[in-house]
Amino acid sequence: MKATILHAPGDIRVEEVPDPQVQKPTDALVRVTAACVCGSDLWPYRGINEVRRPRRIGHEFVGIVEEVGAEVRSLRPGDFVIAPFLYSDNTCPHCQVGMQSACANGGGWGHKDADGLMVDAGQGEYVRVPLADGTLVATREVPDDDLVPSLLTLSDVMGTGWHAAVSAGVREGDTVVVVGDGAVGLCGVLAASRMGAERIIAMSRHQQRQLIARDFGATDLVATRGEEGEAEVLELTAGVGADAVLECVGTGEAMATAIAVARPGATVGYVGVPHGVELPIGDMFGRNVAVAGGVAPVRQYLPQLRDDVLAEVVIPGVVFDHEVPLERAAEAYAAMDERRAVKSLIRP
Amino acid sequence: MKATILHAPGDIRVEEVPDPQVQKPTDALVRVTAACVCGSDLWPYRGINEVRRPRRIGHEFVGIVEEVGAEVRSLRPGDFVIAPFLYSDNTCPHCQVGMQSACANGGGWGHKDADGLMVDAGQGEYVRVPLADGTLVATREVPDDDLVPSLLTLSDVMGTGWHAAVSAGVREGDTVVVVGDGAVGLCGVLAASRMGAERIIAMSRHQQRQLIARDFGATDLVATRGEEGEAEVLELTAGVGADAVLECVGTGEAMATAIAVARPGATVGYVGVPHGVELPIGDMFGRNVAVAGGVAPVRQYLPQLRDDVLAEVVIPGVVFDHEVPLERAAEAYAAMDERRAVKSLIRP
Repeated sequence: MKATILHAPGDIRVEEVPDPQVQKPTDALVRVTAACVCGSDLWPYRGINEVRRPRRIGHEFVGIVEEVGAEVRSLRPGDFVIAPFLYSDNTCPHCQVGMQSACANGGGWGHKDADGLMVDAGQGEYVRVPLADGTLVATREVPDDDLVPSLLTLSDVMGTGWHAAVSAGVREGDTVVVVGDGAVGLCGVLAASRMGAERIIAMSRHQQRQLIARDFGATDLVATRGEEGEAEVLELTAGVGADAVLECVGTGEAMATAIAVARPGATVGYVGVPHGVELPIGDMFGRNVAVAGGVAPVRQYLPQLRDDVLAEVVIPGVVFDHEVPLERAAEAYAAMDERRAVKSLIRP
Repeated sequence: MKATILHAPGDIRVEEVPDPQVQKPTDALVRVTAACVCGSDLWPYRGINEVRRPRRIGHEFVGIVEEVGAEVRSLRPGDFVIAPFLYSDNTCPHCQVGMQSACANGGGWGHKDADGLMVDAGQGEYVRVPLADGTLVATREVPDDDLVPSLLTLSDVMGTGWHAAVSAGVREGDTVVVVGDGAVGLCGVLAASRMGAERIIAMSRHQQRQLIARDFGATDLVATRGEEGEAEVLELTAGVGADAVLECVGTGEAMATAIAVARPGATVGYVGVPHGVELPIGDMFGRNVAVAGGVAPVRQYLPQLRDDVLAEVVIPGVVFDHEVPLERAAEAYAAMDERRAVKSLIRP
């Protein structure tokens, strides 16, 4: 089959790799019908994370079950399924409290599993899915094509934006600030809106992303950054600050802004992989600003968000503004790298 | 009147100071009937926090209202009142959400107020209380003497331990770890117990404090520290970690232990003033361990805890194991400094 391989920074190729097969009784073989590129895929693509050797890449996909192992109970060939960006058994003590991203037996796409068997990455024609019952979430019927982009966001960005809002403790009537206007930040706006936030201040300076933020429920836009942006948010909130803050970038500057605009007693829900973040414990202590979040357990939120998407209560698929066939996956990366696209969809 | 003055590290004296009076229509004059020494008073006493000039000290007291200003509505002379360790108006936007420790018009005992008028510290015969309606919490009747120590803990240590448990999100049935066996940590054990925690692991290596921890509801004691202590807690929790962790010390080592023993998705509620704490954002992100807490808004919890104490549902006054008259306040400091006492009560 064909799949993407990252050879070196900036060098994405689509190549022939071994056809995956069911290897364990808990596996499923999924034919990928849509995949995409994540902001976190850009870290190695840009060389910010080291690329030591060519490797499979991609961790967001939906598709059709082709075959299941003998012990798989909840899935049948022909099912449409959504894969979270990590696989998990959904039964260990961490999964049981909704922390599937810390599953004792879980792992990531594109790496070897605990037994040394290759687990395919998401940007390819097929994927061997370990722990299929725990990992995959199916729809009752194969959904209409126009719902597929929104269902695909539940693999990662929408579930991650949702986790930021859950971690920040967004409640009905809240004033919420969202730092970051990437796909995750935009989904954070949508999540806060769905949770009933009354006012959502999106910090965004790209016009195209501002439009999506508005569509997703942002009531205010702040285009400035750093101390200037913080001052603007404080002015918008009559000097009080936000009831909840979503930090969806992962840089030190973004976290500093998130903490600065939080009102005393508020929580910053953060989901951007931290790069150079130092937490100002003295300020956090003095103002009772909490910091909560991490690798999103999107599996926890998948059934609920699937139902919301199927009922068209939320339409997060709007974040996809670029689409290519698998053979041209390199274009998907380039478009996101050059900020010509918010998020690129790949069709195998 | 007489009051304590910290002249230099280790040098506490009881001296004559001006008699306070009602100076603003929102003031109350309180005759202090019981005060105490806080763990945080030991920072300057030990010279860890600088002492630039002699200063009034003490921020925990209960007493009888002697006189009120013309605008005070909720208090009358003769009322028994509990003072939180900070004064607050209880009406500003921060107070309205229960963050009285961030009151826009509040402040601390023993310093000048916004108008430059001296606000007495708590270890003295009388205190001028600013914003009396917002600050003081009265009991319906003057309570029995044996309830006074427990009511006095609501000024700070019990409210602060309670805040650690609230911040950590302790829920019924939880397994909770409490790091720190000072008065606040012990009150944290009591708070977790009152909130229905099923298992409470107190990290304590002092026999006298272990006894109080047991009395307050600790089900397990861990006497080791650092990596050894962390390993012991993990073993006690079958490798999973705690559902909620209370960090009641404020040192880097205590915070590191608190984070290490938290299960994925758990929150560390911290109330120890941070000294040399660096938060490990990478580990926190990877395991979704949140950090929440800060300067406790004890005023928020005072009415509820007052009722619990009066009903003898909780008896936090057990933390007082040393008592002196005001004239011998220096002994109260020395006993706590030398760890001969958990907490010293001072009777003016």
